Amino acid sequence: MTNKKKLFKQITIIGLGLIGSSLALSIKKNKISSKTVGYSRSSKTRNTSKRLNLVDKVSNKLEESVRGSDLIIICTPLSSYSNIIKKIIPHISKGTIISDVGSAKEKTINEIIPLLSNDDIFIPAHPIAGTEKSGPSAGFAELFDDRWCIITPLKNNKKSHINKVKNLWKSLGSDVEVMSPQRHDRVMAITSHLPHLIAYNIVSTAADLENVTKSDIIKYSASGFRDFTRIASSDPTMWRDIFLNNKEAVLEMISRFTEDLTALQKSIRWEDGKSLHKLFSKTRKVRDKIISAGQDTVDADFGRSKKR
Amino acid sequence: MTNKKKLFKQITIIGLGLIGSSLALSIKKNKISSKTVGYSRSSKTRNTSKRLNLVDKVSNKLEESVRGSDLIIICTPLSSYSNIIKKIIPHISKGTIISDVGSAKEKTINEIIPLLSNDDIFIPAHPIAGTEKSGPSAGFAELFDDRWCIITPLKNNKKSHINKVKNLWKSLGSDVEVMSPQRHDRVMAITSHLPHLIAYNIVSTAADLENVTKSDIIKYSASGFRDFTRIASSDPTMWRDIFLNNKEAVLEMISRFTEDLTALQKSIRWEDGKSLHKLFSKTRKVRDKIISAGQDTVDADFGRSKKR
Repeated sequence: MTNKKKLFKQITIIGLGLIGSSLALSIKKNKISSKTVGYSRSSKTRNTSKRLNLVDKVSNKLEESVRGSDLIIICTPLSSYSNIIKKIIPHISKGTIISDVGSAKEKTINEIIPLLSNDDIFIPAHPIAGTEKSGPSAGFAELFDDRWCIITPLKNNKKSHINKVKNLWKSLGSDVEVMSPQRHDRVMAITSHLPHLIAYNIVSTAADLENVTKSDIIKYSASGFRDFTRIASSDPTMWRDIFLNNKEAVLEMISRFTEDLTALQKSIRWEDGKSLHKLFSKTRKVRDKIISAGQDTVDADFGRSKKR
Repeated sequence: MTNKKKLFKQITIIGLGLIGSSLALSIKKNKISSKTVGYSRSSKTRNTSKRLNLVDKVSNKLEESVRGSDLIIICTPLSSYSNIIKKIIPHISKGTIISDVGSAKEKTINEIIPLLSNDDIFIPAHPIAGTEKSGPSAGFAELFDDRWCIITPLKNNKKSHINKVKNLWKSLGSDVEVMSPQRHDRVMAITSHLPHLIAYNIVSTAADLENVTKSDIIKYSASGFRDFTRIASSDPTMWRDIFLNNKEAVLEMISRFTEDLTALQKSIRWEDGKSLHKLFSKTRKVRDKIISAGQDTVDADFGRSKKR
């Protein structure tokens, strides 16, 4: 999808990790703006960016990186937002849109609004895309192809601004959904945040076992455990910030999960085969729905990687 | 790997689900025996077996299916073992070996030993292989290629018998490991049984949520949840039996998991970012070890399936 008139004059990408670098490559590939600028505080990342030609210009100064841009996309961990906003606000031009790619919305938005000169300019977005890898060399232009991007507009956002961000993501190959920050956070708490927490937790439990040797866990990991380690290798800083910024919804999901697990534990202790069978049959139906909705392939390679 | 002299004269496979049908196909492909016989109580499965030519002969009579075989492999859910053993024992020839592919060992072995005329003849085995699919049409000959098979011999097993079962699995392309039933059950409790239980549980928790619409869960499942639904679509009867037959080890792993999750929950509630970051960094190292042990590929397609 190319547009004759480019959507933006100059786009600044703050943070060149997996998402930032993919965004840079995808914006270039799809010819969304005449110029791209990247910001990273790490010299290693800046060097990688130059080597991979991620952006037209890379800078270690926030003020400098945003000057002249009509779109700024924050792609750093949630805990860095306030500082970034404070630093860039005095240097942005009139009409500039600030957006982001953060995985938790409500709390971040509430922290940012008081820092904005005008709360029209911030259009929060969250592309539902990623891999378990991180860093500027993990990015690829096709990351957002055929994926969802959720936009959670603020009350005062202008429709024309929302549409510009919508068009950006559509041009990158994504489908766009609009919802409230609250609903976003609740949906993500169950579809993404709790699954990651559970994966981190089980991998940690396994790593702490003293009686089963660690080499056995590694050796036989293909029987289920391995899939959890993949999820549990996602970026620690990013995930720390997600849990701190979607605390209430995540805590509620943990409570529900633990309640259900306790019931399951009781069924095992009392050898209640009927309840176990009923529950294991119910979950199978959810899988069928995901496949028929095209959210996964039947022939995914679960358990099929080479042993060595 | 073909042998000039075939390893067995006639092999009976009791139960033609995913593992039984894969075993039948792999035995044929690798020319392990002169003849294969299959047993299934379901006429639908017997018809599929005939259509796919899984075995040379398929029967609905246990007695008939084992007659003349020098190897019998039980590939049915664990709860069926006792009945099967009782029915086949009077009909097997001297020197016949009985083996299985069950995912839990100690309790099953203790139930079976009193039913055997001679406890030399049962050599328990467990191929660490599978997919989330079930039934006779899910099988494929390469399922055991390059995978582990664990043999958990009984005290009185003859070395020559153990070696015959070892050679069977090696000829099917697997690597064989020998360990005690107790160690097997403990290793599987953490690498396979707890991961499956957790996956079943989170999918059930999600399915019960009334405030987040189910279509949202399906729609955004690619952000982590989807990988759990794949595991949670495994065969309900097989998994019910596993949990009932490895109760103690699984209950212990649930306790450890819950303890750890409670600590994690507390870190989130008290916004202890330092503890969260430390744990999320630790789990990443486990993943690195699995990749360097060749148990998974770096480029697994996590989150990369088409949205539709």
